[in-house]
Amino acid sequence: MPDISRRGVVAAATLPLLATAGAAQAQTTPTTERWGFHEITLKGPTESDGSNPFIDVSLKADFTDGKTVLTVPGFYDGDGTYKLRFSPPAEGHWRWLTKSNASALNAQSGTLTATAPTGKNHGPIEVVEGYHFAYADGTPYRQIGTTCYAWAQQSDALCAQTIETLKTSPYNKLRMCVFPNVGHEPIHPFVQTGTGDRDWDATRFNPEYFRIFDRRVQALYEIGVEADVIIFQPYDKKRGFSDMTRTQDERLVRYLIARLSAYRHVWWSAANEYDLIETKSMDDWDHILRLIQNEDPHQRLRSIHNIKRLYNNHKPWITHASVQNGSAILDDRTAETYRSVWEKPVIFDEVCYEGNIDARWGNLTGEQMVGAFWQGLIAGTYVGHSETYTPGNTGPDSSWLGKGGKLLGTSTPRLAFLKQIMEDGPAPGINPIDKWWERHLGGVEGQYYLRYFGTDAPAEWEVNVPKNGITGGEQFRVDIIDTWNMTITPVEGVFTLAKKDNYDFHDPKRPKIKLPKKKYIAVRLTRT
Amino acid sequence: MPDISRRGVVAAATLPLLATAGAAQAQTTPTTERWGFHEITLKGPTESDGSNPFIDVSLKADFTDGKTVLTVPGFYDGDGTYKLRFSPPAEGHWRWLTKSNASALNAQSGTLTATAPTGKNHGPIEVVEGYHFAYADGTPYRQIGTTCYAWAQQSDALCAQTIETLKTSPYNKLRMCVFPNVGHEPIHPFVQTGTGDRDWDATRFNPEYFRIFDRRVQALYEIGVEADVIIFQPYDKKRGFSDMTRTQDERLVRYLIARLSAYRHVWWSAANEYDLIETKSMDDWDHILRLIQNEDPHQRLRSIHNIKRLYNNHKPWITHASVQNGSAILDDRTAETYRSVWEKPVIFDEVCYEGNIDARWGNLTGEQMVGAFWQGLIAGTYVGHSETYTPGNTGPDSSWLGKGGKLLGTSTPRLAFLKQIMEDGPAPGINPIDKWWERHLGGVEGQYYLRYFGTDAPAEWEVNVPKNGITGGEQFRVDIIDTWNMTITPVEGVFTLAKKDNYDFHDPKRPKIKLPKKKYIAVRLTRT
Repeated sequence: MPDISRRGVVAAATLPLLATAGAAQAQTTPTTERWGFHEITLKGPTESDGSNPFIDVSLKADFTDGKTVLTVPGFYDGDGTYKLRFSPPAEGHWRWLTKSNASALNAQSGTLTATAPTGKNHGPIEVVEGYHFAYADGTPYRQIGTTCYAWAQQSDALCAQTIETLKTSPYNKLRMCVFPNVGHEPIHPFVQTGTGDRDWDATRFNPEYFRIFDRRVQALYEIGVEADVIIFQPYDKKRGFSDMTRTQDERLVRYLIARLSAYRHVWWSAANEYDLIETKSMDDWDHILRLIQNEDPHQRLRSIHNIKRLYNNHKPWITHASVQNGSAILDDRTAETYRSVWEKPVIFDEVCYEGNIDARWGNLTGEQMVGAFWQGLIAGTYVGHSETYTPGNTGPDSSWLGKGGKLLGTSTPRLAFLKQIMEDGPAPGINPIDKWWERHLGGVEGQYYLRYFGTDAPAEWEVNVPKNGITGGEQFRVDIIDTWNMTITPVEGVFTLAKKDNYDFHDPKRPKIKLPKKKYIAVRLTRT
Repeated sequence: MPDISRRGVVAAATLPLLATAGAAQAQTTPTTERWGFHEITLKGPTESDGSNPFIDVSLKADFTDGKTVLTVPGFYDGDGTYKLRFSPPAEGHWRWLTKSNASALNAQSGTLTATAPTGKNHGPIEVVEGYHFAYADGTPYRQIGTTCYAWAQQSDALCAQTIETLKTSPYNKLRMCVFPNVGHEPIHPFVQTGTGDRDWDATRFNPEYFRIFDRRVQALYEIGVEADVIIFQPYDKKRGFSDMTRTQDERLVRYLIARLSAYRHVWWSAANEYDLIETKSMDDWDHILRLIQNEDPHQRLRSIHNIKRLYNNHKPWITHASVQNGSAILDDRTAETYRSVWEKPVIFDEVCYEGNIDARWGNLTGEQMVGAFWQGLIAGTYVGHSETYTPGNTGPDSSWLGKGGKLLGTSTPRLAFLKQIMEDGPAPGINPIDKWWERHLGGVEGQYYLRYFGTDAPAEWEVNVPKNGITGGEQFRVDIIDTWNMTITPVEGVFTLAKKDNYDFHDPKRPKIKLPKKKYIAVRLTRT
């Protein structure tokens, strides 16, 4: 891992998965992979003449392959250094041309060859089939999220531990804040103008702060974990980074887009618990999200996360719903309602957390945490994890939720097991089957069914398959899955379906199967 | 009740609750109550000259009291008769002036005095406090709906029976179709051009058909039942009244607005199970609802009812959600999701029906039907009833759901009991308490709580009151309500609240109450 004290410009060489960074006056055409990361560094005005480059200098570049033109915003990285970051959406030859109000930065141009993606580069995540996600090359992406709000603002050592933990975990998306909500390293996002909490200059970012943030994002990039970047949050009321003016908010959003959107694994979360931020109206949130939609040349995923007031996720700038509702995933029926309402992918990013604190939002058992994922799965939705445990029971601020580090709970291995079930199942994902009829079945009609029993502990189950997609004669294998003990027990033989009644098909020779009378059991039917 | 064979123009004198009908050349200023029904009859072109008055003649009138101008569409009622129907939204002196492309109808004018409402005239239903309904004068309206799709197209005798049944029932809203979905009297909504199912002229309404429909609507008006008028439905595929062109749809919608919107108890339901109508797109539905929004001078409530695909009830022309989902009211948690999503009143107009048919949508027990209303209530939503029972078990087409008549089920008296509970409770209605935390509590914070246990049969309950709205020292009376046996049993004494923990208040001297270990129990807490 990089040392946090090393605060120079990050060199491309330190980023094995990133493509070669370009340079403005490159003699040969640089290359990067399609969906890779290409950085152009330019020299321009500094603060030394009394100006403020963050405000006074404009910079953007048009990138074109002759078919598409993408306008990429540049950003000031301090010390007279300006950068443009671009991720080519298509293979081929790209040309770029800058426009700036500073002559040193204006009318600069160059080229770039985007080569075929290799290795783990499957492209950015996109919404597919209405309710699911996949990498741009079609590789399925089964979201198993977690949250470490302020991990990025911790020491390099703790960040390294977080990355190591993630490497061996099932989590493939991490929610993380631009501004920390808990204790953090003493570096300020803005230039400080005094010692008071509000003594900072909203017109001057601290590039060092954001270079460190870049490195955290890059570290996730390298291990294949999506970075769900939370721009605003309501927790740091003292410093008030969420209480800026609209103009200041716009500047922050544009700066983040310029710095981060070229990373193919970045998602935008406009806010955490947006409705707790008293200084912003719904119109402000619409404005912020529309701004991201309009300005992000890479069109990363966009959402916003609530506490009590659901955002209208029908709005066209929302790519997927990011819901907090701890009760919605107590059964698939409730989870499913959001999906049918918004007709977009639904991620229950916060359903309370596994842990042992007094607060009711942070004391789920591992069983409850895992159960939420299964209920969400058969509802055709996705769920997020986190933990409030701390080694010395020192409270959630020092937990995985707050700072990352180590995982102490019991849910993680079961979520890895769940992820394997998902990966062994249909792509891009599971849809509710015969929704609104208490089937508690997810899958793909005619092909694959998962029945989850939650805290019920039935002794048997009638193997009834809803009629849609079935004509009779289909054969299915049946597995009994213990989602907590992580076992898969095949039921011997096959089930050959015949019409049972107006709604169901079954195998008349074996209409029921025995179940182990335990909680957290699922049954899987796979077409042979 | 009027005789169905009497098909002349309905005289105002037959409508005790309606205000005096005016006449174009009235010498004295006619009067009607505010929110009453004022009809102006004019004579104009007939079909005799070969023209089609439904298409060729335009007629509208501007009504003004000097503050507001309402443009009221006129309609052709056959035999050279044209009518304008107006319900004054405010007391005072109103003037009107017609505009028409027919000289006999153009530039006609008159006056009208709107007097104070009297008796049962509380005005039209409006949305209040975001999620509830009230009459325009502020009188609470607790929706207990039912459905008789094709009651209006039955014989006068059967219609009279339906009205008699409704009079002694709790139902205060009836969903009813403009075009019948089941067997009906042999009168056609349009002029027939042959004997085939599709041999009808979409450009020529049959005024007689709509005069009968008027009388059905009026009959509900007289007994104080709101008429939720369903314009399109997918069931009559042979005749295809839902398969018209956009121009023809627009003509129908305008005709219905002109005929019916002056009745203060009319609501508009653009369709039943809209998503089963294959000949219309979402854009068509938006267009139809926007048309109603723009053209209805009386701005009656507007909704649309789904089967599987939920309409986006965020859309501004929707006043309340009209949802079909039989599983959403199995618990308050799921019911509540729609409310929080759309931030509008939610009526579960179809949650399956009490009855005994094979089809799964029509075989709820009375207990299940009543349970749905209670779950909906504590979720802060509203529910609709109907029945599929028939005397000779002849199927749903001859049931209350299809044709009206008599109620045979067991839910109706329990819904009357429920309605009384609602009327004894807070106005305008009940909101979920501490939603998303599995409280299963509805009410008004600090004042009134209802806990419903559904099919649980607990022996006791911890009387914990969520902290919002409570500071300690409040006193509550507690009643145990048997929602099925319709008993209310007061718990002796009062409960004086003190802080219990971070989330709850309770009475430390009596933290629990005993319950009767029966299903369908509720507990009511009322502030003393």
